[in-house]
Amino acid sequence: MGFAYTNLFARELPAPAPRWTGFPKYNFIGGHNDPVHIPAEGLAAAASAVLRRRGADLAMYNFDGPQGYHGLREFVAAKLATGPGISCAADDVLITSGSGQGIDLVNRVMLERDDTVILEEFTYGGALTKLQRLGVKIVGAPLDEGGLRIDALDRILGDLARKGAAPKYIYTIPTIQNPTGTIMPRERREQLLELSRRHGVPIFEDECYADLVWAGDRPPALFALDPSRVVHIGSFSKTLSPALRLGYAVADWQVMSRLVGCKREMDSGTGALDQMIVAEYFTTQFDPHVDGLTRTLEDKLATMVEAVEQQFGTAVEKMWRPKGGIFLWLKLPDAIDVRKLVEPAAKAGIAFNPGPEWACDGPAAKSHLRLCFALTSKEQIREGVAAFAQVCFEETGIPERSDNVRRSAV
Amino acid sequence: MGFAYTNLFARELPAPAPRWTGFPKYNFIGGHNDPVHIPAEGLAAAASAVLRRRGADLAMYNFDGPQGYHGLREFVAAKLATGPGISCAADDVLITSGSGQGIDLVNRVMLERDDTVILEEFTYGGALTKLQRLGVKIVGAPLDEGGLRIDALDRILGDLARKGAAPKYIYTIPTIQNPTGTIMPRERREQLLELSRRHGVPIFEDECYADLVWAGDRPPALFALDPSRVVHIGSFSKTLSPALRLGYAVADWQVMSRLVGCKREMDSGTGALDQMIVAEYFTTQFDPHVDGLTRTLEDKLATMVEAVEQQFGTAVEKMWRPKGGIFLWLKLPDAIDVRKLVEPAAKAGIAFNPGPEWACDGPAAKSHLRLCFALTSKEQIREGVAAFAQVCFEETGIPERSDNVRRSAV
Repeated sequence: MGFAYTNLFARELPAPAPRWTGFPKYNFIGGHNDPVHIPAEGLAAAASAVLRRRGADLAMYNFDGPQGYHGLREFVAAKLATGPGISCAADDVLITSGSGQGIDLVNRVMLERDDTVILEEFTYGGALTKLQRLGVKIVGAPLDEGGLRIDALDRILGDLARKGAAPKYIYTIPTIQNPTGTIMPRERREQLLELSRRHGVPIFEDECYADLVWAGDRPPALFALDPSRVVHIGSFSKTLSPALRLGYAVADWQVMSRLVGCKREMDSGTGALDQMIVAEYFTTQFDPHVDGLTRTLEDKLATMVEAVEQQFGTAVEKMWRPKGGIFLWLKLPDAIDVRKLVEPAAKAGIAFNPGPEWACDGPAAKSHLRLCFALTSKEQIREGVAAFAQVCFEETGIPERSDNVRRSAV
Repeated sequence: MGFAYTNLFARELPAPAPRWTGFPKYNFIGGHNDPVHIPAEGLAAAASAVLRRRGADLAMYNFDGPQGYHGLREFVAAKLATGPGISCAADDVLITSGSGQGIDLVNRVMLERDDTVILEEFTYGGALTKLQRLGVKIVGAPLDEGGLRIDALDRILGDLARKGAAPKYIYTIPTIQNPTGTIMPRERREQLLELSRRHGVPIFEDECYADLVWAGDRPPALFALDPSRVVHIGSFSKTLSPALRLGYAVADWQVMSRLVGCKREMDSGTGALDQMIVAEYFTTQFDPHVDGLTRTLEDKLATMVEAVEQQFGTAVEKMWRPKGGIFLWLKLPDAIDVRKLVEPAAKAGIAFNPGPEWACDGPAAKSHLRLCFALTSKEQIREGVAAFAQVCFEETGIPERSDNVRRSAV
């Protein structure tokens, strides 16, 4: 007979969730990771060690204070010193329930309805969704193979200032940009900070994927170059496991004290066992774990690129070959609206990220798509891309040829 | 030099957090638990077992779907069948990041600014804070030793209906009421549901402490008696560990589908290791663990009551002796405003919950306070209560006598 008071629900609610029916067979969406690289034995040993040492502390909320487990904050500070060259102490780090909460916290501190922010033209879909929900105006800035184009960004900032709509921040993913997979060179980072200074706009730096680089060097983080203008966030979802919900934020104390104040309103801390076990494991195993994972991801990318080239051929107008990470960003011919492929693909057991969900100008990205290759096996990648090309052909007539053979409806 | 853009912060922000300096020596606040009863070895063994079985699944977000780890939902369903008599399946359960997120989710689904809700006159401080932040009008309903007074509640509901301010829900903690520690008898639960039917107001039932009963029987949950009128939440913070951030919600699918939809906006799932390890441990160890913990808590309460009687004597006008749980609610003479004791107590290493933070009518509860006894040892309870009585005497001249000896300033 159901709930007697559905008439009392708040007016503006997200759609009701459907009953969950499991994952698609060819799952090319989201930030899932490689299951073979989950170090179950290592995590079990870490759990034993840390529970024996600190177990009794679990009796308390936030037993190492509201910024999170001290051991994990110490590890983050050490990792930031060697990777992105950030010099900070454990007390400058806030552990967040995933980097999604990091974004929520920075938005809470910086934004009000009708504010303006600048995002990269193609960007993380979750960041877009959160900003749309907050009623914030999003301005997209163009990208090239080095990330944000400084000349274009300078013009945009000038235009906004003249309109009296100075942006509250520039959100950038400089190292393994999501979804294009590019790395912003150091020189351009310096130029971006110079723009920040000149236009009086802070930078919100998201380095979610930055530990998974296989092509070229990793330049210093923007935060490393100027901590007075940047709030920096990162994640363990990509280097270890998205199910653990562990991210972090690093910022000057004037920002950090606000982030911590706002986190207290959002939750009563981040899950402690997750924090303790990851700290224990990664304090000794981060480098070998991430090296192995990165090699596997690079290998899976090669399979994905080969499969896409084989199945889609010249129908791929542009392929952004990523320098690290877990996704491949593609452009198909303008005649294809990938949003119309979502449903038929799902029927064939295929899930992918349609470009419009990953772009400031959604309709303009209707022929783009993102394919994640971390979760699926190489065999699933080959099969799934072939099945996707077939769906695409049946819906649009493109690609006409695959593997040099003319397609026909199955 | 600090962050260059503090001028760009949002206008209405919580106060900046201070640097964390550790816990007070005599920590009688919050929902902390007994550290001796954290089963570190058992959790370590559970971690090993479940990581070996399901470790690879950590590669995925929400690997058992958006309602949380299936094993934990199965355990919750089993626990609800035996304790509060709720008949539900794992798919009717949503795992939340603490019961605080359960409250946030129900509020998100049910409330809009300027709505009215009914709370128990003395109630959980966190629920009050969340509602105040949402701009919701709070009406307090009187309590007696059986919980909500049905006659008074009936009048309040009638008055509100006449004023056109029909409440969106009645929030109640029927089993081990927070802070009074009472249990609502079954007959009154039936009467409350009858009021709900007659006035068309749903019930929001919080059973956070309901597994820790030592005096008398546990009646069936309100949800067990009428699932069409009740949303039910609970927690593992009190039965195991508040640091783990695990709670749950149970509701009819018409509500559940909304809660799940809203949780997706709040996070990308609850930390998985926390869920997996607790499910693994509690599936076999819940009863013995909770039995042992409950006995210890009852014992600590006896120490706390004895210390309060010894140190405060007749200065305690009323003491609500709880039937379970972790806290003692007291009323001191009207001449004492406990809010003025917070700072001097903190200087003496003592923290307590001032009544106004746990009451719908804050100023009227200025002589009430809540003392939690789970975290501190019996020795700390004796020392801390003695030190608190001394602070109270020095600030207010009350209690004049302790242990039958006239007090004097130290």
